[in-house]
Amino acid sequence: MEEFDIEHVADAELRDPVLIEGLPGVGHVGKLAAEHLLEEFDATLVRRGYSEHFPPQVTVEEGRSELACVEFHAVEVEGRDLLVLTGDHQAQDNAGHYRLTDTLLDVAEEFGVQRAFALGGVPTGELIEEYDVIGAASDGELLAELREHVEVREDEPAGGIVGVSGLLLGLGERRGLPAACLMGETSGYLVDPKSARAVLGVLETVLGFEVDVSSLEERAEEMEEVVRKIQEMEQGPSPDDDLRYIG
Amino acid sequence: MEEFDIEHVADAELRDPVLIEGLPGVGHVGKLAAEHLLEEFDATLVRRGYSEHFPPQVTVEEGRSELACVEFHAVEVEGRDLLVLTGDHQAQDNAGHYRLTDTLLDVAEEFGVQRAFALGGVPTGELIEEYDVIGAASDGELLAELREHVEVREDEPAGGIVGVSGLLLGLGERRGLPAACLMGETSGYLVDPKSARAVLGVLETVLGFEVDVSSLEERAEEMEEVVRKIQEMEQGPSPDDDLRYIG
Amino acid sequence: MEEFDIEHVADAELRDPVLIEGLPGVGHVGKLAAEHLLEEFDATLVRRGYSEHFPPQVTVEEGRSELACVEFHAVEVEGRDLLVLTGDHQAQDNAGHYRLTDTLLDVAEEFGVQRAFALGGVPTGELIEEYDVIGAASDGELLAELREHVEVREDEPAGGIVGVSGLLLGLGERRGLPAACLMGETSGYLVDPKSARAVLGVLETVLGFEVDVSSLEERAEEMEEVVRKIQEMEQGPSPDDDLRYIG
Amino acid sequence: MEEFDIEHVADAELRDPVLIEGLPGVGHVGKLAAEHLLEEFDATLVRRGYSEHFPPQVTVEEGRSELACVEFHAVEVEGRDLLVLTGDHQAQDNAGHYRLTDTLLDVAEEFGVQRAFALGGVPTGELIEEYDVIGAASDGELLAELREHVEVREDEPAGGIVGVSGLLLGLGERRGLPAACLMGETSGYLVDPKSARAVLGVLETVLGFEVDVSSLEERAEEMEEVVRKIQEMEQGPSPDDDLRYIG
Repeated sequence: MEEFDIEHVADAELRDPVLIEGLPGVGHVGKLAAEHLLEEFDATLVRRGYSEHFPPQVTVEEGRSELACVEFHAVEVEGRDLLVLTGDHQAQDNAGHYRLTDTLLDVAEEFGVQRAFALGGVPTGELIEEYDVIGAASDGELLAELREHVEVREDEPAGGIVGVSGLLLGLGERRGLPAACLMGETSGYLVDPKSARAVLGVLETVLGFEVDVSSLEERAEEMEEVVRKIQEMEQGPSPDDDLRYIG
Repeated sequence: MEEFDIEHVADAELRDPVLIEGLPGVGHVGKLAAEHLLEEFDATLVRRGYSEHFPPQVTVEEGRSELACVEFHAVEVEGRDLLVLTGDHQAQDNAGHYRLTDTLLDVAEEFGVQRAFALGGVPTGELIEEYDVIGAASDGELLAELREHVEVREDEPAGGIVGVSGLLLGLGERRGLPAACLMGETSGYLVDPKSARAVLGVLETVLGFEVDVSSLEERAEEMEEVVRKIQEMEQGPSPDDDLRYIG
Repeated sequence: MEEFDIEHVADAELRDPVLIEGLPGVGHVGKLAAEHLLEEFDATLVRRGYSEHFPPQVTVEEGRSELACVEFHAVEVEGRDLLVLTGDHQAQDNAGHYRLTDTLLDVAEEFGVQRAFALGGVPTGELIEEYDVIGAASDGELLAELREHVEVREDEPAGGIVGVSGLLLGLGERRGLPAACLMGETSGYLVDPKSARAVLGVLETVLGFEVDVSSLEERAEEMEEVVRKIQEMEQGPSPDDDLRYIG
Repeated sequence: MEEFDIEHVADAELRDPVLIEGLPGVGHVGKLAAEHLLEEFDATLVRRGYSEHFPPQVTVEEGRSELACVEFHAVEVEGRDLLVLTGDHQAQDNAGHYRLTDTLLDVAEEFGVQRAFALGGVPTGELIEEYDVIGAASDGELLAELREHVEVREDEPAGGIVGVSGLLLGLGERRGLPAACLMGETSGYLVDPKSARAVLGVLETVLGFEVDVSSLEERAEEMEEVVRKIQEMEQGPSPDDDLRYIG
């Protein structure tokens, strides 16, 4: 295997597609959002990407192994073509992040991608009441467009944007591909479907489509239930509460 | 030295050989199992593999140094040829795991290997009563065959398979070599000859041969004696036990 | 992107320029000093340097992303041309330090740089009263010149000079570029504008120019105020002090 | 700079030279022993080796910087030519150890080296009374010769030999250069000139020369004085001892 190995799984002719990236990150916000698109719309797996920069491992499901990879799906969303990038891994080393992103951008270019949206989370360190989404872009024009749909803050995210999401903007700009990042606020402690829903909400208005988020909301409610239980356990049962506590 | 250096030690014509990998890992299960084959059958050292991805060291025995390496032995087992891969090291870095496995697969291909079995352990975190073996494969046909001889679980091993064993499946599949992994349950705390014996038991039925495991059982009994002593020490001597305790 | 990507931002004809390096380091002394030159004199951004050895991230300001980079500015200081190197990052790995410095020296050479000054801090481990500056050079002639303006100590800095500053001297010498390092003493615990002012003071006498350091002094006073408050908090309020303590 | 940069400092015609390696390691035994040869005999610096695998730093002495390097000196010892390798650094990464040793062996080969002796220490974990030296070799003939002058133990050093010393044997063997390692027992806690003297003692009998070790003994006595003081401080003063304790 070479440093990168892009497996051609299926052909696809995409009309002016938009790249949507949702690799693992804070609260798995981007991953949840991107995978939700694959569940709700017709998605065709078109490419798999393997790399020696991924962890040296296979996952196993029902006894069948699968080498660590990322996947590109072609998705048609109300007449608009998306190229959705998902997976379970980021690169494991510094240079690997740069080279991986560059290779993924090559694939995007091959499909004629003209714009990219990196989806992710921004950690706040506390539980979220209102799920704000923050935007950033590598390009003035795209940033201006973004400002109509999403909050752009003076100095956030404070630590910048790291990993593939950040480099999609940085390396995208170096090769003339306008790219934006939509970051849902999230505590940073939990997988956060609510934040993913908020990010999808912004993506809907920016790209002009609608997606059913009920399954994401169900998952969010399950997570909230978990959070509630943890909070209750931390506070201890209230006096009139103790008989109903277990369960 | 290049990144990899494969030393040609002896020629060997193998008929439709099966690759058996037993490099160090959890409980040294795979290593014990593979080395047991070398002890019980006629084995010819055919290749040594050196690499800058191994630790920078030599071992010393009776004053004679030996550079860190892995070894391929040709082994004839009841009319069937095996190519057995053993050694004291895995790669020390991420990309090294990928490149090492790829290089080892090149050697296997050179010998005409058509199938590979990676032997290893899967940690359970507690002492084992019954030594189950779990199977996984990179290929549907091989997996179906495996199911006749070994348990295949829905979602195990949970963390996937890492290192050379995992990549033998993952990279094997990328080059069209069907590969399976036989993982003996083991506590993860001790070198585990009993788990190795269980793995060999499955390998015997899959490949159709028989191997004397008495030396492995002796070693297992020695280990069990050690475990018993440790458990006794942890629990403290029982009242009627204390005179016999020391020794 | 290649391992390094030098972006040509603007042309500049520099007469016998001196390279001034101020990348992040102890007390951010070199960075503060070099950036102060950019603030006080006319500075033209001429090159940006990107590298896979930098952290995989973009910074975001007002929603606009910028890929991790270092910058070269052409600065005219009283008839003398400087090429000032600043940025927020050093390389993240060992070989990266060597390769980055070599690449930056290529850029300097392209501009005809004949001499280099690396600016930095040397940690003393305690708060500084008098801000001494220590000098070192890769070249006997430059060192002799330096001795007229700055203290050269027998065995300091004890740990040598690490990172780009150190390698500017080491690799500069290998390619025949005389280079010196001016290191301001600093506690090592705080960003230290006073140490940066001291370093600039030496640079002024060595290169023969004058720079207004009032903004740096303001910043130093702010930092001293912070230090005073921290010291007060550590010692606790004195008896007749406690009414005025808060605030 | 390339990955390695071998600076040609002086020409030297060596007759059938022996390579002596003394880079930093346990107790700095090898380094002390090799540097002692440079002090006691006429030594000509012939090559310096720089590498991106060394730490990214310069040392500074009297204000003059020197890039991290290793040095080869040609030394004539009673009619016998030695090529002595010393320095302050080993490689900082795994592959770097392999590549550095290979490059250093290229230099040795260029000088016609036919045999190599790596000098080092083997840690015992306790203060040493009698300074034994253990030998190991990559080659049966050299090992047999070694047995006449130095102890060869069944299974020591238990952890093998790591770093450049180990790879001199391992990679030396791969290219047909017989190499031995002489390891002085040392506590592992202190720089140990006594162990270095013991190693030199063996080297004298193996190579047939004599070296004045009085300066090494002085240094050893200084170290022993330090050790004595530390031991006294740990035990506390004895009753009739306390008036003489300070000083």
